[in-house]
Amino acid sequence: MILPAAMMDLAFDEARAGLAEGGIPIGAALFTIDGVLLGSGRNRRVQQGDPSLHAEVDAFRAAGRQRDYRSTVMVTTLSPCWYCSGLVRQFNIGSLLVGECRTFSGGHDWLADNGVEVTVLDDDRCVAMMSAFIAEHPDVWHEDIGLAP
Amino acid sequence: MILPAAMMDLAFDEARAGLAEGGIPIGAALFTIDGVLLGSGRNRRVQQGDPSLHAEVDAFRAAGRQRDYRSTVMVTTLSPCWYCSGLVRQFNIGSLLVGECRTFSGGHDWLADNGVEVTVLDDDRCVAMMSAFIAEHPDVWHEDIGLAP
Repeated sequence: MILPAAMMDLAFDEARAGLAEGGIPIGAALFTIDGVLLGSGRNRRVQQGDPSLHAEVDAFRAAGRQRDYRSTVMVTTLSPCWYCSGLVRQFNIGSLLVGECRTFSGGHDWLADNGVEVTVLDDDRCVAMMSAFIAEHPDVWHEDIGLAP
Repeated sequence: MILPAAMMDLAFDEARAGLAEGGIPIGAALFTIDGVLLGSGRNRRVQQGDPSLHAEVDAFRAAGRQRDYRSTVMVTTLSPCWYCSGLVRQFNIGSLLVGECRTFSGGHDWLADNGVEVTVLDDDRCVAMMSAFIAEHPDVWHEDIGLAP
C-alpha cells in the first residue's frame, strides 16, 4: 500500500519537471486506491501552448479510458480549480489528495460536500514552489486561472 | 453579427463529423461575442482514446491561449457536464449557448446562477442525434459521463 506522502512525491516531481521546462509548476497523478499509478501529468500551458492541459487533466488523459473511477485517487500539488474540480466530480473520482490550498483555493470543499474524500496535506514544498512561481510570473499564472488583466 | 443559430450550426457540424468517425456526437465552438470563431472541436474519446477531450475542452484547446474570455461564447450541442461547466466557470467565459438539455442535463443552471449568460435552444437536430447514439451505444455514453456499470 503506497502512502499519501509517496503519491504526493510523484505529483511534486511532475511539478518540478514542469518548472524545469519553463512551465507552471503544478503536477498531478491518478492512482488506484491500492496505489497503482494509472497516469501522471503536469500543467503544459506554456510548454505546449495548450490551455486545456491543467495538471489534473493531463494526468486523467494519461490514464486513458477507464470504466470506473470510484476507487481512484486524484493527487494534485495544488487545490483544483473549477475546471479540474468538475473533472473529479463528473467522473466520480472517489478521493482527492491536495498538496496545498494556500496559494490558490479552488473547489476542494465543493468536492468534499459532494461525496469526494478530500485530504489536504499542506505540503511546504508545494507552497514554496508555487509561491515563487506566482511572484515571478503573475501574468502567466493569472492567465491559467482565467483572471483577465 | 453571426446569429446564435449559425453558431449552433457549426457545433452541430462538428457533432456530425464525430458521429461519422464512430465517435460520440457532441460538438462545440468558442466564438467572440461578435461572432469570430476562435476554435471548434468535438468529443474524441473514441477516435483518439482520450477521455479528456469532451467537445467543449476540444474547442477551448483549439482556440489556443487567450488572455480574456469574458466576451466569448461557448457553443455546445449538449448541456455541459460538470467537467465542461467547470471550464466555463474557471475561465470566466461570458456566455453559453446550449443545443439541448433533454438527453443530458449538466451544469448549465449552475453556470447561470454564477453569472454566465445561458441560452438553451432546444434544437431538435441535436436531440435526435444524441438520442439515437445513446440508444445504440449506452456503454460508451455512460463511460463518457463517468457512470460506472
